[in-house]
Amino acid sequence: MPSLRLSEVAELVGGELVDDRDPLIRNVAGIDDAGPGDLTFVASRRFAAGLDGCRAEAVIVGPETKTPLPAIRAEHPYAAFAILLERFAAEDDRVFPPGIHRTAVVDETAVVADDVAIGPYSVVGPGVRIGAGTRLGAHVVLGPDVTLGCENRLYTRCTLREGCVLGDRVTLHVGVTLGTDGFGYLPSPTGLRKIPQVGIVVVEDDVEIGACACVDRATTGRTVIGAGTKIDNLVQVGHNVTIGSHCAISAQTGISGSAQVGDRVTMGGQVGVSHQVTIGADVQIGGQSGVTRDLKEKTDYFGYPAVQARESFRMAGALRRLPELLRRVARLEARDDKSNEISGETP
Amino acid sequence: MPSLRLSEVAELVGGELVDDRDPLIRNVAGIDDAGPGDLTFVASRRFAAGLDGCRAEAVIVGPETKTPLPAIRAEHPYAAFAILLERFAAEDDRVFPPGIHRTAVVDETAVVADDVAIGPYSVVGPGVRIGAGTRLGAHVVLGPDVTLGCENRLYTRCTLREGCVLGDRVTLHVGVTLGTDGFGYLPSPTGLRKIPQVGIVVVEDDVEIGACACVDRATTGRTVIGAGTKIDNLVQVGHNVTIGSHCAISAQTGISGSAQVGDRVTMGGQVGVSHQVTIGADVQIGGQSGVTRDLKEKTDYFGYPAVQARESFRMAGALRRLPELLRRVARLEARDDKSNEISGETP
Amino acid sequence: MPSLRLSEVAELVGGELVDDRDPLIRNVAGIDDAGPGDLTFVASRRFAAGLDGCRAEAVIVGPETKTPLPAIRAEHPYAAFAILLERFAAEDDRVFPPGIHRTAVVDETAVVADDVAIGPYSVVGPGVRIGAGTRLGAHVVLGPDVTLGCENRLYTRCTLREGCVLGDRVTLHVGVTLGTDGFGYLPSPTGLRKIPQVGIVVVEDDVEIGACACVDRATTGRTVIGAGTKIDNLVQVGHNVTIGSHCAISAQTGISGSAQVGDRVTMGGQVGVSHQVTIGADVQIGGQSGVTRDLKEKTDYFGYPAVQARESFRMAGALRRLPELLRRVARLEARDDKSNEISGETP
Repeated sequence: MPSLRLSEVAELVGGELVDDRDPLIRNVAGIDDAGPGDLTFVASRRFAAGLDGCRAEAVIVGPETKTPLPAIRAEHPYAAFAILLERFAAEDDRVFPPGIHRTAVVDETAVVADDVAIGPYSVVGPGVRIGAGTRLGAHVVLGPDVTLGCENRLYTRCTLREGCVLGDRVTLHVGVTLGTDGFGYLPSPTGLRKIPQVGIVVVEDDVEIGACACVDRATTGRTVIGAGTKIDNLVQVGHNVTIGSHCAISAQTGISGSAQVGDRVTMGGQVGVSHQVTIGADVQIGGQSGVTRDLKEKTDYFGYPAVQARESFRMAGALRRLPELLRRVARLEARDDKSNEISGETP
Repeated sequence: MPSLRLSEVAELVGGELVDDRDPLIRNVAGIDDAGPGDLTFVASRRFAAGLDGCRAEAVIVGPETKTPLPAIRAEHPYAAFAILLERFAAEDDRVFPPGIHRTAVVDETAVVADDVAIGPYSVVGPGVRIGAGTRLGAHVVLGPDVTLGCENRLYTRCTLREGCVLGDRVTLHVGVTLGTDGFGYLPSPTGLRKIPQVGIVVVEDDVEIGACACVDRATTGRTVIGAGTKIDNLVQVGHNVTIGSHCAISAQTGISGSAQVGDRVTMGGQVGVSHQVTIGADVQIGGQSGVTRDLKEKTDYFGYPAVQARESFRMAGALRRLPELLRRVARLEARDDKSNEISGETP
Repeated sequence: MPSLRLSEVAELVGGELVDDRDPLIRNVAGIDDAGPGDLTFVASRRFAAGLDGCRAEAVIVGPETKTPLPAIRAEHPYAAFAILLERFAAEDDRVFPPGIHRTAVVDETAVVADDVAIGPYSVVGPGVRIGAGTRLGAHVVLGPDVTLGCENRLYTRCTLREGCVLGDRVTLHVGVTLGTDGFGYLPSPTGLRKIPQVGIVVVEDDVEIGACACVDRATTGRTVIGAGTKIDNLVQVGHNVTIGSHCAISAQTGISGSAQVGDRVTMGGQVGVSHQVTIGADVQIGGQSGVTRDLKEKTDYFGYPAVQARESFRMAGALRRLPELLRRVARLEARDDKSNEISGETP
């Protein structure tokens, strides 16, 4: 790990030293874990109480947070901290050693740029094309005719089946699977008959896909993950789904076949989206929601089935009062009966 | 990709040309994506509006759909289209090259039929038996004493632990894991004590299991996936589960230990089934439902916890009216109090 | 499989023969599947009816269960049976053959104890340390500077990214992925900007993690799985999560970033836990629950969102009566209107 003076950090992250103390920073840490040599941060005044008793060497704070610790002041402390984190990340050359490992099996018809790295036991099929600066970890398998752009990172065990296409600067984490058959069958007298899946998956530039996530190939045409979209671990994307740009889709979410997801949509974890649903741009969907119909843009949704978040919270609040409501209605009915008795009415 | 005259397609799929136009078909596509050279289809009159402005070269339609495009008429257009798709699927020999790759590690006690294909870096353990026509992709690992029937397809990274058994014509997609230990522990004074899992997994004929799905071995005896059943990606099947024949189980569903699922059951995505539950034949379970008790045959279920779909929809509808109901009851109570005041009653 | 006299089994499991019959036991089986040669068990009197017509050779029963079969009496029949199961489990040497396979790629800077087993095509990176008695299956990949303690079992396809640490006697099932990047981004004018994830994952002693589960590395610091905790298949654990000791977390559960889970917590399948939530010790959470706020210790929770189980069941029961309640309130309103008409009141 690199050591830096606090003043060097300030310059790196675009902040300024609060006073003339300039300790040596050896590592980075969260506010509760930080000790001597560590730099930490306080994202906003709301978390400033965490600085009481904090043992960090120094801290990055926002414009309005005060601390007796040596400090860097920055407009967005977390963003500044994130810049610093890059300095502490493992070196690319250690995680993805340069060159093509002697054990990699690369088909003679594959076209591989000069500076591509390919890890041990990776398999590159016939007709594959790999652009400059792309690095594959160990045990990556690229099926026939896969095309990868430039500067991609494919971690251990990624598998891309035949014909799939990645843009540039795409990161696929451990075990990502692209291009397996969509789940399509037709009933027949002898059971479910498979609909062959002959389309592909296209992943646009700057996408990141989490560990063990699966994206199915299209029945015909393309399943598309739009530019800049981030997908978390163990997510399932069905055949012929289109996901827009700059979406953030949390872990274990499942998006069924032919659903259309607009730009900048965010989904919490374990969301389920039914097939053929259309989700407008800038929609936010709470964790574990079940989306069964089209959602209109720029709106928050929650629940099972998902409704507008405001309505969902209202229903949840009302539901908590329901057992008591049952008693209240029983009381009203009892009184009503009694009053009818008094008035002699026969219901 | 093969090119075919429309008349050849008609013969292939068992339909008939609508008129004497007989264009060359170069590819297949969905109705919205189709362009020159593409054949598409319209499954039913309901989707016929999609033909307006459709740029396809030709279309497969049902008995009652009219179109100015060159067309094949077929009783079941989607089924006809599916037949054609087989012609456009990647060739088996390209996806699973014939022969045993020089890097495959095959134990000398394994019994492998002559025409079996084994991909790069696959590992075949001691006592394994592999039937005729079965093909393994790259990085497949078969533990000791695994038995595979004939004409199976195991894609990249499938792992079968010791003793598991596949029938014939089984497809395991990328990363399928069969035979890992069931989740069984007993409380003890020193913590959770593992119950050894010594059973196996049996997968019957014509089953298809999706990418990264997991099926646990039985504690004793067998976890069984019945003939013709289709399981989607990232599904979890617990120890000693029995799934019947011709079921369709969508992505990310989890079936807990010792549950019994009847024949022809369908489950939407992300369904959860509690342990030891019995589900009757021909049951349909909506996505994200939570099955906590036995379900009777030929019935639709939905919800968390799952109830009969009709009741579930009624409850969901009523729940939407609950906030208003609270107000209505409050109004009744106010009137009731007032009327009691008038009558001088002391509640 | 070993054969044992029933009297030998009795000695092994700490039970006693009910009479002088001492048949040969060749295998173990559940009560419904058991046949000649099989030993089965009845966990409690509640299941004793299963013994009617049972074809087992012999049975392990509790103090109060009677049976005409040859039997061992034990205080905890299932615990006794579990001891026996160990005798029927596959031999370690067959599943994890001793020695370092000729195809394994072990970096020259790795420090590997003498009796470590490493399977075919496994990759051990630079700076890795592996303690005595640890066994790796096929296709295991250990990134740079990973540290494994003693007596661990890592099944096929496990991947540990750089710097992760395992204690002793840890079992990682097929395809476990430790140390991939947490899902952390900051909004920026050009899209989501990645927060580098520079922490690690620490797995303490006696932990077991199920197939294809994923545990993300910390942003800074450590994601921790506490000693003795058991995690089922396809579980997702986010960055900077801390899970206490002796927890049991069922399949497909997802725990979001920075959540804190106390000791001896149990979670059913498909539970979702929101980020930064704190869960007290000895909490039990029902399957598919959604935990959106802190949970207090020694309490059972259920539902979406999760509330105390008692309240959740009360709400579910009330919800089933809601459609009828709507009708009852409408009836009250109708009467109320009528009575107002009679009394001439203008509302």
